[in-house]
Amino acid sequence: MLTTTAADPTEQASRVTVLGLGDMGSAIAKTFIDRGHRTTVWNRTVSKALPMVDSGATAAASAAEAAAASPLVVVCLLDGAAVDEVLASVDAAVAGKVLVNLTSSSPHQARANDRWARERGATYLDGKIMGDPADVGTPQVMLSFSGSRKAIDVHGSTLGELGTVTYHGEEAGLAAIEFMAQVAMGYEILIGFLHTLRLVQAEGVDVAEFAERAASSVAALPPLLTSIGNAVKAGEYPPDLGPLNVQAALMDDMISHRESIGVEAVRMREVRDLMNRRIADGFGAQGFSSLFELLTKP
Amino acid sequence: MLTTTAADPTEQASRVTVLGLGDMGSAIAKTFIDRGHRTTVWNRTVSKALPMVDSGATAAASAAEAAAASPLVVVCLLDGAAVDEVLASVDAAVAGKVLVNLTSSSPHQARANDRWARERGATYLDGKIMGDPADVGTPQVMLSFSGSRKAIDVHGSTLGELGTVTYHGEEAGLAAIEFMAQVAMGYEILIGFLHTLRLVQAEGVDVAEFAERAASSVAALPPLLTSIGNAVKAGEYPPDLGPLNVQAALMDDMISHRESIGVEAVRMREVRDLMNRRIADGFGAQGFSSLFELLTKP
Repeated sequence: MLTTTAADPTEQASRVTVLGLGDMGSAIAKTFIDRGHRTTVWNRTVSKALPMVDSGATAAASAAEAAAASPLVVVCLLDGAAVDEVLASVDAAVAGKVLVNLTSSSPHQARANDRWARERGATYLDGKIMGDPADVGTPQVMLSFSGSRKAIDVHGSTLGELGTVTYHGEEAGLAAIEFMAQVAMGYEILIGFLHTLRLVQAEGVDVAEFAERAASSVAALPPLLTSIGNAVKAGEYPPDLGPLNVQAALMDDMISHRESIGVEAVRMREVRDLMNRRIADGFGAQGFSSLFELLTKP
Repeated sequence: MLTTTAADPTEQASRVTVLGLGDMGSAIAKTFIDRGHRTTVWNRTVSKALPMVDSGATAAASAAEAAAASPLVVVCLLDGAAVDEVLASVDAAVAGKVLVNLTSSSPHQARANDRWARERGATYLDGKIMGDPADVGTPQVMLSFSGSRKAIDVHGSTLGELGTVTYHGEEAGLAAIEFMAQVAMGYEILIGFLHTLRLVQAEGVDVAEFAERAASSVAALPPLLTSIGNAVKAGEYPPDLGPLNVQAALMDDMISHRESIGVEAVRMREVRDLMNRRIADGFGAQGFSSLFELLTKP
């Protein structure tokens, strides 16, 4: 198509479209605008686009028109169902584009989006953001990507303006796996923490003061997590927190204490049962990490 | 009893007895010996006392004889049941002593030990140790105490040779509450981490590399724990990780992903159900910390 107006490659690279202007989408669009990208936006509810237009973006009348406007099309919606709906309306307008989906969704959805993009002649990059919308544009926001390596090579610096970028590999689902694993870890810690706050509150201890002390303990945990990861990978389980024989002695006390004050103990019962099974199997000299052997093998 | 041989108070203060020579008890006795205390030891299995005698301790023939030898009597056994048994054999020999129980056990047991000691004219201090026996004698080992304030005033510096000491108050159960809450937090995090390693392994991701990244994420959590503690104390719940309305969108995806690869999801289901209830109650603009309101009130 040499007869068309040949766009300056630099200018082309600096055009970006953002589909979806919730809190995170708006923060992304605003960052692109502020860094000088020619930004096209679209949102189902048009009013959300107005502050972006005031900041210098172009609002498109439809998702397809927005997608057609830039070589790099970034999607950030509430969930996978919203992505499916918006992509269906974009359809063939995605041809030749790099489609980057930053919506929180599953590895399965990432792989389906990848197929959908290929079928329409587009290149797919799945991305997942961890961080506060207010921090977008700073290194505190973590972005995981997977999918087309070429796309990350070409657009990595633009996407890197949003935060700290990690590329996990060509398989489109990898970023979502990382995201779901990290988010699950966060929720595991936080819900366990809430139950623990309920415990200390029930015993008349100041929850805010306890939280400070718990935060100090958690700050000391990372080396243990790393060593447990190594133990699981090697399948060799040194007595990390002491041998299971010793660790297990406390579990019944902890469970009956929690029951006596009406605090749930689902994980404590699980840990006790796993420890007891492992000890019965003759592995009482190993550490906590060896419980991994008893978790359901997928 | 002015007619008895008046011991030099300094010398008296430097006498200490250790009952129980498991890994932790031995590390404690060894630290006292190395710091120049005249240390008397006793263990049910006599062979465990031999290395201590080689290091300069005196081995007593019975727990009662050992208790009679020093003004400060430190107990460190496997569990509360073992403590009950050994204290029954010590009985009246504890009169006039400061009894410090460092065995991992419950607040209920601490209070019972406190009563037992008072009935025999002894002063009770409950203590709980968190750390590796190999680190006893360094500040990395954390010791929580509760019970007699006078006892901690007199013997705090001796006990402080074992690690970093925190005194929680006169109520004998407070150290055990702190210990059980902190240990529970640790197990909550570690069992959630093991399930997450199972998830990433099922998806073909290197577990050791993931563990490194998870460790980095956990290292960033302490400020969030502190702010959640403050939110719970105040009963005011800002949108910490974003509003529940947005957070909840991901939970079903996470649960179905875990189910599809055979990884358990008990906490993810709990978090989803709590979020949905909280949203239904009209609190969808609040943060994760607000789930505290739905936890069973003891």
